[in-house]
Amino acid sequence: MINHPDFTVEPWCLRAVDLDLTVLAQTESIFALSNGHIGWRGNLDEGEPHGLPGTYLNGVHELQTLPYAERGYGYPESGQTIINVTNGKLIRLLVDDEPFDVTYGEVLAHEWRLDFAGGVLHRRTDWRSPAGSTVRVSSTRLVSLTQRAIGAIRYSVEALGRPVRVVVQSELVANEELPASNGDPRAAADQAPLISRDHAAEGTRAGLVHATARSGLYIAATMDHAVDGPSATLVESESFPDLGRVTVTTELQPGQRLRLDKFAAYGWSRTRSLPSVHAQADAALTAARQTGWDSLLAEQRTYLDEFWTRADIALDGDPEIQQAVRFSLFHVLQSSARAEGRAIPSKGLTGPGYNGHCFWDTEAYVLPVLTQIAPEAAAHTLRWRHSTLPLATARAAQLGLRGAAFPWRTIHGEECSSYWPAGAAAFHINADIADAVVRYVDTTADQEFERAVGCELLAETARLWASLGHDSPGGPFRIDGVTGPDEYSAVADNNVYTNLMAQQNLRAAADALGRHPGVARDLGIDEEETARWRDAAKRMYIPYDEALAIHPQADGFTDHQIWDFDATAADQYPLLLHFPYFDLYRKQVAKQADLVLAMHRQGDAFTSDQKARNFAYYEQLTVRDSSLSACTQAVMAAEIGHTRLAYDYLAEAALMDLENLEHNTRDGLHIAALAGSWIALIEGLAGMRNHHGALTFAPRLPDALTRLAFTITTGEQRLSVDISATAATYTLKDGAPLHITHHAQPVTLTSDKPITRPITTAPQTLPAPTQPHGRAPSRRSLPRRPENREPVSNR
Amino acid sequence: MINHPDFTVEPWCLRAVDLDLTVLAQTESIFALSNGHIGWRGNLDEGEPHGLPGTYLNGVHELQTLPYAERGYGYPESGQTIINVTNGKLIRLLVDDEPFDVTYGEVLAHEWRLDFAGGVLHRRTDWRSPAGSTVRVSSTRLVSLTQRAIGAIRYSVEALGRPVRVVVQSELVANEELPASNGDPRAAADQAPLISRDHAAEGTRAGLVHATARSGLYIAATMDHAVDGPSATLVESESFPDLGRVTVTTELQPGQRLRLDKFAAYGWSRTRSLPSVHAQADAALTAARQTGWDSLLAEQRTYLDEFWTRADIALDGDPEIQQAVRFSLFHVLQSSARAEGRAIPSKGLTGPGYNGHCFWDTEAYVLPVLTQIAPEAAAHTLRWRHSTLPLATARAAQLGLRGAAFPWRTIHGEECSSYWPAGAAAFHINADIADAVVRYVDTTADQEFERAVGCELLAETARLWASLGHDSPGGPFRIDGVTGPDEYSAVADNNVYTNLMAQQNLRAAADALGRHPGVARDLGIDEEETARWRDAAKRMYIPYDEALAIHPQADGFTDHQIWDFDATAADQYPLLLHFPYFDLYRKQVAKQADLVLAMHRQGDAFTSDQKARNFAYYEQLTVRDSSLSACTQAVMAAEIGHTRLAYDYLAEAALMDLENLEHNTRDGLHIAALAGSWIALIEGLAGMRNHHGALTFAPRLPDALTRLAFTITTGEQRLSVDISATAATYTLKDGAPLHITHHAQPVTLTSDKPITRPITTAPQTLPAPTQPHGRAPSRRSLPRRPENREPVSNR
Repeated sequence: MINHPDFTVEPWCLRAVDLDLTVLAQTESIFALSNGHIGWRGNLDEGEPHGLPGTYLNGVHELQTLPYAERGYGYPESGQTIINVTNGKLIRLLVDDEPFDVTYGEVLAHEWRLDFAGGVLHRRTDWRSPAGSTVRVSSTRLVSLTQRAIGAIRYSVEALGRPVRVVVQSELVANEELPASNGDPRAAADQAPLISRDHAAEGTRAGLVHATARSGLYIAATMDHAVDGPSATLVESESFPDLGRVTVTTELQPGQRLRLDKFAAYGWSRTRSLPSVHAQADAALTAARQTGWDSLLAEQRTYLDEFWTRADIALDGDPEIQQAVRFSLFHVLQSSARAEGRAIPSKGLTGPGYNGHCFWDTEAYVLPVLTQIAPEAAAHTLRWRHSTLPLATARAAQLGLRGAAFPWRTIHGEECSSYWPAGAAAFHINADIADAVVRYVDTTADQEFERAVGCELLAETARLWASLGHDSPGGPFRIDGVTGPDEYSAVADNNVYTNLMAQQNLRAAADALGRHPGVARDLGIDEEETARWRDAAKRMYIPYDEALAIHPQADGFTDHQIWDFDATAADQYPLLLHFPYFDLYRKQVAKQADLVLAMHRQGDAFTSDQKARNFAYYEQLTVRDSSLSACTQAVMAAEIGHTRLAYDYLAEAALMDLENLEHNTRDGLHIAALAGSWIALIEGLAGMRNHHGALTFAPRLPDALTRLAFTITTGEQRLSVDISATAATYTLKDGAPLHITHHAQPVTLTSDKPITRPITTAPQTLPAPTQPHGRAPSRRSLPRRPENREPVSNR
Repeated sequence: MINHPDFTVEPWCLRAVDLDLTVLAQTESIFALSNGHIGWRGNLDEGEPHGLPGTYLNGVHELQTLPYAERGYGYPESGQTIINVTNGKLIRLLVDDEPFDVTYGEVLAHEWRLDFAGGVLHRRTDWRSPAGSTVRVSSTRLVSLTQRAIGAIRYSVEALGRPVRVVVQSELVANEELPASNGDPRAAADQAPLISRDHAAEGTRAGLVHATARSGLYIAATMDHAVDGPSATLVESESFPDLGRVTVTTELQPGQRLRLDKFAAYGWSRTRSLPSVHAQADAALTAARQTGWDSLLAEQRTYLDEFWTRADIALDGDPEIQQAVRFSLFHVLQSSARAEGRAIPSKGLTGPGYNGHCFWDTEAYVLPVLTQIAPEAAAHTLRWRHSTLPLATARAAQLGLRGAAFPWRTIHGEECSSYWPAGAAAFHINADIADAVVRYVDTTADQEFERAVGCELLAETARLWASLGHDSPGGPFRIDGVTGPDEYSAVADNNVYTNLMAQQNLRAAADALGRHPGVARDLGIDEEETARWRDAAKRMYIPYDEALAIHPQADGFTDHQIWDFDATAADQYPLLLHFPYFDLYRKQVAKQADLVLAMHRQGDAFTSDQKARNFAYYEQLTVRDSSLSACTQAVMAAEIGHTRLAYDYLAEAALMDLENLEHNTRDGLHIAALAGSWIALIEGLAGMRNHHGALTFAPRLPDALTRLAFTITTGEQRLSVDISATAATYTLKDGAPLHITHHAQPVTLTSDKPITRPITTAPQTLPAPTQPHGRAPSRRSLPRRPENREPVSNR
């Protein structure tokens, strides 16, 4: 996208200056608005043409029986799928007697602009009807970050040439017809997932209440409008089971304008009654109507001002990446800001990809970022995990294990992975959740969270590891037959990442319960149990290949045949679509960082030499068929001194969706990869690590970048870091003195007293690592396209 | 069954002297008749009540889309399922105005008798109708071993008390209603798999022709009758799309009898036209009608006389096992005799279990037996495999491999396994096929077979191994990531069984092509390629655990946690129904013989000490949740000197279906386990091994058995062996002198000059191996139930 000719390079917005229908579905994902509770894809106001219509409510799903030709014990019986709920963003327009439709008539001008600072999507289209009437349609759309149940649109239509009669139909539409989805047998069932339960319309308001057939949810969508038009403007409303409509009719003289402020409110529940859910949406609607459009817009900006103050990253030298990074952070915020009590799906609420499921990416890639820039959102996600503990402990029991086994993929909390070797066997997700807890508590020192949420998550995951692993006779503690992060291996013994993360999990649980003896008592955990955890952690087996002097990613990995990369054509990637699992699993080829991720997350377990050798070894085997890989490779490349390579990987992470690198942005954005652009910059180029709350930095910029400046939050403190080629300046914005290190040198910061430390050139020149044939990251070259410096916002 | 009070112990038949409807479905499987082409379950003549109606034609199947919630490259898209074809064995009876039905009125007497020597199923029921009329219904049923397309029934009804009016309806019924099959989503589609294409009736004949919807087969079933009754007997016929009927009406005085000889003929084809398939069935029918009932019966007996002359096993001391062994051999013959060009399904044609698929059991368990007692049937099966080579080479190519990858489960030849770790990854099936080729050629010296069929099978499987394995840097040849025989492990490196069998495969292929250079040329195989095979075989990696001094069944196996057998309750077996694959795979627990099977099939690769230690080790881990295991454990127990244990395992194999040990005999018999009773006796107690055609024996009987006598065929020669507690007598029946060994001593046999050699007592008393808690085989104790010595046949 960002190198599509319609898109401009600007620091605080993403702008398309024309309408290219061939990339419409991706455009809709990129321009999606969300607050983590409601998701509105960037569909055109008038609904059609569309790539993929999409309106989502976090947690609203339908159930499907998972089909198996051959069943196995413990296979999940029921799958969960995100559904397209009532579309509240539809505003249709009739110009004289012709429907406004960009595929007919003539588009004279079109612009879309996603404003990262204002949190709105602007749209403007000048259109001439087949009969020759010309109108300008403008809209500004937001999904409110301050009023969780609300989406709103200011819509206006203006006569440009001759007088026109216009009819505006603002609608709520349930059970929209969706484009066919590749013959998936489940698609049919999803075509009309909503069953009408109630509908009403009066004056400028209309509302629909639906239920789902199997998941048993009520979903209410209501809308109200403020209309500003010529005096002869008529307003009518009507409702049907799947349609609520407010119709506004008027005649516009040239230059005259009809303006409609549309407020849409959503409510849903599994437990409350229909009247209660309906009333909840109505109440939110009334509040929003009272707030009014201008105040909603102002609240949105204030919320984002606060966010950017804590989270912004400024980058000099590569305006495309500057834009991509703000785009990334904006969407990471959107995916999580008001998710309160629900998951962060891997696509956020930007599309139906991966069935709307939440995976390990949330804790392993998104929460490390949120913890440093929006810690309250990180806490909410972990509280959601905590709320699913009864399901996770039941799942563990079903699998014959103690503690909690969190699902590989889910919406509501039950395991929905139907292919267990890649899914349910990836037990590392439990340690990833524990790691997110540790990281959050270490960073925020939120003792109340640790007591109420963290301890139990740590304890139940520790119990899982204690029962999943076993003591070899007189030897180490082994964890056999699990799947690590790399999905091109499965069901292996002693995956290094898993074992190291489990080791941390076991120790952290014992430590936390030591701090909260009351919780330990409540959970029935005595000192004998925590001593067993510490002992298992101490004896955790970490395989090492002495002959190659590297760590195998799991037992036996380095004995396997190396994938024949030279014989693999460019169009055979991603490999999983062209080769059977059996062949991928038994050969040395990595879909994504696995041992390299272990070195990032558990760096203390490796010497510098091991890191360099391991990195070089796995670089040759890693094809990055997963969007999660590039950022991790950026981090370790930077740590080892391959700064230029780190920059290339940063660019790949940051441009994942803007350049549609995985060819599936149409189904939604890769939220974890977007978070990865923060990781690549802050943990990569700035070399930040958070060792139990103690921050260390080892910044070093690639030649192209002249400045990297960012702010992070660590508990009560905000720290700004401003890095140039030769120096880094650290400024503590608030709070008590902070001890950090800069390239291993201790630095003590006090409030608002910037300290600058020099950056020496990299001490070593290691041979550049090589990647599999054809799989090196794109070499980032500058300058690309000129930056558009037209001010589009007040930032 | 055999210990069910209705069943008697007799040497040459299986007789039930009452009708117990609670075991009806198992009874139908046990009394099934088949010639390998047609299968008729032992359903009551009148069709109802039934456990599971079943009429099968070998190869007749329907296709289903295999469902996957998460798809993967190379997953089979289409499954094949055996279908219940037109039922030609139905003969309904109306007595006065009431249907003859054993669930109404009163059964005065009932007997079923399956005659192993005559190859027929006798049935007799004396029945009093609710209104008080009494009749005797007798039938004798056969599926002809000499006329492949023919099943026939002699049916008679006799008035026992007062005069009765009887109406006999002899039917062909298509699309019989089947009992619901456990909510399987595919069941609905199978309820009416046959689409009518033609039907006709005239005089005593009727015929139906159907097609299948997706597999594109035509199936013709026709019938004709010879009627013998009082002079006033009326015969009518009619036909409908799914029903052909010949109705015979008469009045019977007390003692008077109506007799009907019914001949049913079947034909089917995927390639021929409808008229051609119809004509084929009609022609077979006419031939059978001309042969007549008495001659069909005589042909059947002659065929079986010949079979038993080559195959019989006589056993003194355990009449139940004697009966079970003849039952086993009879069904093994039935599954294969006239399969010509088709597979031997794992259930034969006795039921729909495993979807009617053929697995590795055929080559690994059934063909070793057939090769020694009915070698022409073994050759037919291998010719069928050979005919599927184009599919197997296409499958290999799809998987990125050279050569042929035969399917784990199939009817027609395409892979139908939808869970690849247990199915498609079990590449050993290719070496099992190669082993069957080697065994057949070594035994029969059938050079023409080797040239036309064997060489290509050996070569394409050798090519598979050469491409599936790889050279470790400077080290051995490894085969990683495959599944061995034990289905409680999967996707492991260097499974010993697989590697040893692949080693033999590679060498045998090179040897065979050396004998047939013309074939090698035709296949494009040069000496460089065969040299590579020999080299790979030579360097084949066989893992060994030095610390435990045993062979791990695959790399890393002995490092895994040992299954907690003490914590596993009796009702948690079979484990796969109560524990997830992930837990089974990562622990030391064996569903079935794997390393122990390697010691049986590739005994030369192990020292005697290794065999004893390995056997003891794996006995502790093997739960025998597979019906294939007991016979192999019997063989190795016998070889090592645990004769009593071998006897227990023999009994388990022989009684698998008669005692319904796996609780699924209702779905069909376990043909490979039945073949396993031969293996347990001949390769177990008699200690026979076939080393490239050279036979060795090491007989030793358990105390309970006073005699074991059997005949085997080896090429042109028949060898009879008669073993007592103290000696074995070897008699060559025909052919050139034969060199064998008896307990490692060479013996040269010449025609009809019996040689007797002593058997010493077992030299050693090893500690008895132990099995997992609760999983020791039943201790065979004698005497059981008295033998019924009533003569039922002329043997």
